[in-house]
Amino acid sequence: MPERNMTPQSKTVTRHLVSINDLTNNEIECVFEVAQSFLNELGDRRLKYRIGRGKRVAPDSILATLFFEPSTRTRLSFESAMLRLGGSIITSADPATSSAAKGESLADSVRVVGNYADLLVIRHPRDGAARLAAEYAKVPVINGGDGSHEHPTQTLCDLFTLRQKHKSIRNLKVAISGDLKGSRTIHSFVYALARFGATIEPLPAPGMELPPHVDRRLREEFRSKIVTRAAEEGEAPIDALYVTADEPHQQSLFSGPEIDYERVMIEKKIDAVYVTRFQKERWSEKEVPYPKIDAAFLRDAKYSEASVMHPLPRVGELDAAIDSDNRALYFQQAAYGVPVRMALISLLLGLQPGKSLRSYETGFHKDRLPLYNQPKSSGIRCGNPNCIVHEPSESQYVRNRFHLVRVAGQCLLRCAYCEADRDKFVTANRRHMWYSFDTTLWSTDDEHAQKELLAFATEDDARKAGFHLRKNAPHGAAARKAHAAS
Amino acid sequence: MPERNMTPQSKTVTRHLVSINDLTNNEIECVFEVAQSFLNELGDRRLKYRIGRGKRVAPDSILATLFFEPSTRTRLSFESAMLRLGGSIITSADPATSSAAKGESLADSVRVVGNYADLLVIRHPRDGAARLAAEYAKVPVINGGDGSHEHPTQTLCDLFTLRQKHKSIRNLKVAISGDLKGSRTIHSFVYALARFGATIEPLPAPGMELPPHVDRRLREEFRSKIVTRAAEEGEAPIDALYVTADEPHQQSLFSGPEIDYERVMIEKKIDAVYVTRFQKERWSEKEVPYPKIDAAFLRDAKYSEASVMHPLPRVGELDAAIDSDNRALYFQQAAYGVPVRMALISLLLGLQPGKSLRSYETGFHKDRLPLYNQPKSSGIRCGNPNCIVHEPSESQYVRNRFHLVRVAGQCLLRCAYCEADRDKFVTANRRHMWYSFDTTLWSTDDEHAQKELLAFATEDDARKAGFHLRKNAPHGAAARKAHAAS
Amino acid sequence: MPERNMTPQSKTVTRHLVSINDLTNNEIECVFEVAQSFLNELGDRRLKYRIGRGKRVAPDSILATLFFEPSTRTRLSFESAMLRLGGSIITSADPATSSAAKGESLADSVRVVGNYADLLVIRHPRDGAARLAAEYAKVPVINGGDGSHEHPTQTLCDLFTLRQKHKSIRNLKVAISGDLKGSRTIHSFVYALARFGATIEPLPAPGMELPPHVDRRLREEFRSKIVTRAAEEGEAPIDALYVTADEPHQQSLFSGPEIDYERVMIEKKIDAVYVTRFQKERWSEKEVPYPKIDAAFLRDAKYSEASVMHPLPRVGELDAAIDSDNRALYFQQAAYGVPVRMALISLLLGLQPGKSLRSYETGFHKDRLPLYNQPKSSGIRCGNPNCIVHEPSESQYVRNRFHLVRVAGQCLLRCAYCEADRDKFVTANRRHMWYSFDTTLWSTDDEHAQKELLAFATEDDARKAGFHLRKNAPHGAAARKAHAAS
Repeated sequence: MPERNMTPQSKTVTRHLVSINDLTNNEIECVFEVAQSFLNELGDRRLKYRIGRGKRVAPDSILATLFFEPSTRTRLSFESAMLRLGGSIITSADPATSSAAKGESLADSVRVVGNYADLLVIRHPRDGAARLAAEYAKVPVINGGDGSHEHPTQTLCDLFTLRQKHKSIRNLKVAISGDLKGSRTIHSFVYALARFGATIEPLPAPGMELPPHVDRRLREEFRSKIVTRAAEEGEAPIDALYVTADEPHQQSLFSGPEIDYERVMIEKKIDAVYVTRFQKERWSEKEVPYPKIDAAFLRDAKYSEASVMHPLPRVGELDAAIDSDNRALYFQQAAYGVPVRMALISLLLGLQPGKSLRSYETGFHKDRLPLYNQPKSSGIRCGNPNCIVHEPSESQYVRNRFHLVRVAGQCLLRCAYCEADRDKFVTANRRHMWYSFDTTLWSTDDEHAQKELLAFATEDDARKAGFHLRKNAPHGAAARKAHAAS
Repeated sequence: MPERNMTPQSKTVTRHLVSINDLTNNEIECVFEVAQSFLNELGDRRLKYRIGRGKRVAPDSILATLFFEPSTRTRLSFESAMLRLGGSIITSADPATSSAAKGESLADSVRVVGNYADLLVIRHPRDGAARLAAEYAKVPVINGGDGSHEHPTQTLCDLFTLRQKHKSIRNLKVAISGDLKGSRTIHSFVYALARFGATIEPLPAPGMELPPHVDRRLREEFRSKIVTRAAEEGEAPIDALYVTADEPHQQSLFSGPEIDYERVMIEKKIDAVYVTRFQKERWSEKEVPYPKIDAAFLRDAKYSEASVMHPLPRVGELDAAIDSDNRALYFQQAAYGVPVRMALISLLLGLQPGKSLRSYETGFHKDRLPLYNQPKSSGIRCGNPNCIVHEPSESQYVRNRFHLVRVAGQCLLRCAYCEADRDKFVTANRRHMWYSFDTTLWSTDDEHAQKELLAFATEDDARKAGFHLRKNAPHGAAARKAHAAS
Repeated sequence: MPERNMTPQSKTVTRHLVSINDLTNNEIECVFEVAQSFLNELGDRRLKYRIGRGKRVAPDSILATLFFEPSTRTRLSFESAMLRLGGSIITSADPATSSAAKGESLADSVRVVGNYADLLVIRHPRDGAARLAAEYAKVPVINGGDGSHEHPTQTLCDLFTLRQKHKSIRNLKVAISGDLKGSRTIHSFVYALARFGATIEPLPAPGMELPPHVDRRLREEFRSKIVTRAAEEGEAPIDALYVTADEPHQQSLFSGPEIDYERVMIEKKIDAVYVTRFQKERWSEKEVPYPKIDAAFLRDAKYSEASVMHPLPRVGELDAAIDSDNRALYFQQAAYGVPVRMALISLLLGLQPGKSLRSYETGFHKDRLPLYNQPKSSGIRCGNPNCIVHEPSESQYVRNRFHLVRVAGQCLLRCAYCEADRDKFVTANRRHMWYSFDTTLWSTDDEHAQKELLAFATEDDARKAGFHLRKNAPHGAAARKAHAAS
């Protein structure tokens, strides 16, 4: 995560947690310090959080859980955390009995419920829904899982579990297994791992590889290097390892011959296998081959010290026989959900003296990238059909809003809600009425020039809107060819 | 509302809030004073209700929300209010997971849950359900919306919002737009407006005019005068304005020539436009023309200072573009739901020293009108098919109970549950075995004579039950003719 | 209940309440003493439980209600009890919105939620589900109703109601009416009645008699004697009375001529009629003749002092006209749910000084009968199709586990989860590879010999698994004949 664009934030800014990338590394470690302090106070191995009356830091606060998708674990975990802090909860657990059943928009719901509670936790089937909620709510919004986008508090629990087990969350080697495409948990998790330096080994089910935009972000934003190796006999083929150095200065260590680097990383034992559930609800096909983690799988020497993790619930991909294996960490992982969420809530509400996220040194990565507001009446829209921008009830409330991402000599548009990328699009100029395939036009530092630009999904769209191909454009032919090849 | 029949009530009476008319004007103002005191304590413009521990007036009380229809807003608002008072909540939000799914009657449910909680909030799809609940519960019942009948706490929030904005709730001019027929919110609201003196301008969607019984009550009980005017060119036709004087002594002001009165009222600017949602769930047709309140609508000079109100949720009838207009008051209105409900709860539980509704000077309008219990085995029943009396599971618990309403030289029967009126019916005498079309027979002050009377929906029903037409009845022929004309 | 096998338990054992038989008689009376103390403190006839702040014994505890089946009454009653104790609640009331909708096993759910709460209440449609939950949870589990198995806290409320009305729960005469087959409430209730000495008169709807395993347990474990009598003219036929002496020494009183005993018991008036609802959800046929308890029924002299009880909800089998009869005790019975559950919760959490069930003298009947773990790969399984062992999502977590019950010269296998009995089965010997119809083989005190045994549902199954009929088996032919006759 490039932190250069961050600026200190005023104390009155309402802080949200939508993406794990809304938190700086320092802030993540701040959450863990507070969580650790709750655990220390308790001094209880069974993870009972009977906080004494004096420790109840949030006696006057209400947490609202607004869940538009089934959940027990995440919701009850948040509610338990709030109660352990001495606060109260109000709950809307079932979309069918909520005002959403009457057709209410999420934007309205959060503005109203923000009057009833001091903090909102949102779960929603649409990617980017939590960002929309955060745009409209007057109180902090925590993303409790939005479509296939992110699940940042799960990631905080995952990292905290790794921290408790391995003393550090830096430079771990983690295998991730299962549905890497649809699992929002995985997406938040790999970003965080890469940010703290990690070697990530994807073990996807067929067709459930990491989505292209996640792969790209790992490589281009979180500085992961891809290391591939042909399969050796008797060993599963390693398609790719994402290797990220912990600190920029460490990167120099990797500037030597690639082969050494590979060996070092490949020979290192796996610290954790992170297993994910087959997300039946996101796949139409019912029967797919899906990797199962069981005793046989874990017999491989490289897993001999690997913690087995799972965000749960599991539905067959993780053998129950492993429950008694001392590498099994998933119930512990679930248990840590309470102190980690206690820490996050108390920080967002500003109830930890000197440690509030509201006033933390670096602040959230808000506005970390230039934002581009496309007029809603014309031009490109987010290409992700499950993005909240395509939900009819929200049509009046969402904007055609993109982050401008400059990587590898081109620009791409990242939806400000679901963070899906568009890398193939047509750039038009409203003043001169031409269009071009050159996305680097957006990279200009001339704000005025940038405001003249407009994006279209296709050349056809641009033409229909009255634009003509820019003549004598630099790179024009090559760009068009590249565009057409997509 | 005629207050003459009210008598002071004993302190031990359990008070309920089913209809806005269960509260006297003084009581409504008492609720607002208490709500205001909560706001003052908070001294926070953002409407955060972080009540200090010392202010928690209800630490030992439990509120139960029993919702047999979808809701988030009303339920969470009540729950938040109770928690802000320091109390606790138990919730049954989904009819499908409640014992109602096993066929339990509401009468039984409230008797049981009345042992688990100190106060019940009921929402139900049937008109009059909350009154039935109040008949059986041993603890106070608050109507959280019953069918198309009433939604009195919404009205309290609406009035309080108007009071905060316009300093007073007297003599306001309010336009009401949308589904005036099916919206219980509107029904409670117009009664309250009229009671405090108001000019009400209905702007209904076609076919969604105020129901006849609401119209009648406005005119005959709340002393509204109808003022009509032909449409002028370029102006929407004004079919009717309901104009009510604030105080009886003010009525004399209106005894002058009608034309002056009209002008005064018509020329006055609108203080508030109250918009209501199209109640899809109450209409079988899916497509109806429905008035939309947007910037164009509000451009009319008469709305230049009009607060825009909406009970929310909205589903398209109120343009989101108005959200940033400073006349938009609907999110504020939602926010006031918490202090107003805090006030109501604390008063019903007797937790406001010297101000409990239980012991308030005038008391609820209980028994404000003579009650007539028709034998269940024969005779008339409530004519409203959605009334709770027609719910099979309640058949053993409801009574054929009507208020006797004497207006304009006749009597009518108002269902004691849903308050729908029957003005065309046949009156029979059990002793003499005759029947008559003269409804004024019920006006007798001779209790004994009244007990001999029985009502039938039709002449046919009376005949089948063995009654014969009364001979030489005064007004007989005219009454029959009037009856037949209905 | 044979108490001989019980041993004092260590204080660190987590205590559960799955079956009413998990509690000794002393423990049941301990619960009632604590419940009585809550009532005394309140000193309020209206059964309001406004516990003062000082009495809040559980301010730091959280109760989780996990309901996989519709309920309002039981859930809200538990939640109210916990709140009255000063504790907090988290709720999963709807299976459709829980992680069970994603296919999570109950075994996983309780392990996870056990980290969020200090006590779990489970309701589940499968018989034996609560026992499975108790096997996996690290915190106390209370059975809030599992299939047709048991509903022990309802029984505690029922017994407490009888105790308050009749001063004692010993030697009562109780008629039980309605669905005696499907009502889990009845099953828990009759066991408890018999254990305290009682005369039970079943008045089942046709085809809804007490299930064979309940009948057997009453007779063989709880020492009930069956007394039958031919119907006299004008009197309903008495098919069977279950008569149990209070104390073993009283049994001698019944050793005289049967006829006297019968008369005494038959002539005694009924102390209570316990009515149960027709469990529509457990019967496919919609129309069955079902006994209705009304004024006419209660006019019989033998019911002149009978309390009328019902666990509620009722759906027509108990006439509402009885509500005002002073024998009607069912709303009182519902009201007692709160203090009884307060007592149970506070005891299970160890919050009653000197009275915790965790350290109570006799302890739960855990391991009261030898347990037999059949290998899952082969052999007999529980014969109850609704048992939790047949739930696909639990297949990895349940065991083929049976209690060995030795009665009347034979052995039977009682499912450790749903407690359904198998009395016809084939016993095989793994060392000698023979099978036999002699179930008494299991009675051996030679642990080593017992471990060689294996049970099969049928002779066929045993043969398919490679076993052959034992030659020269004692009782072989007779046993086979008896087996075949089943």
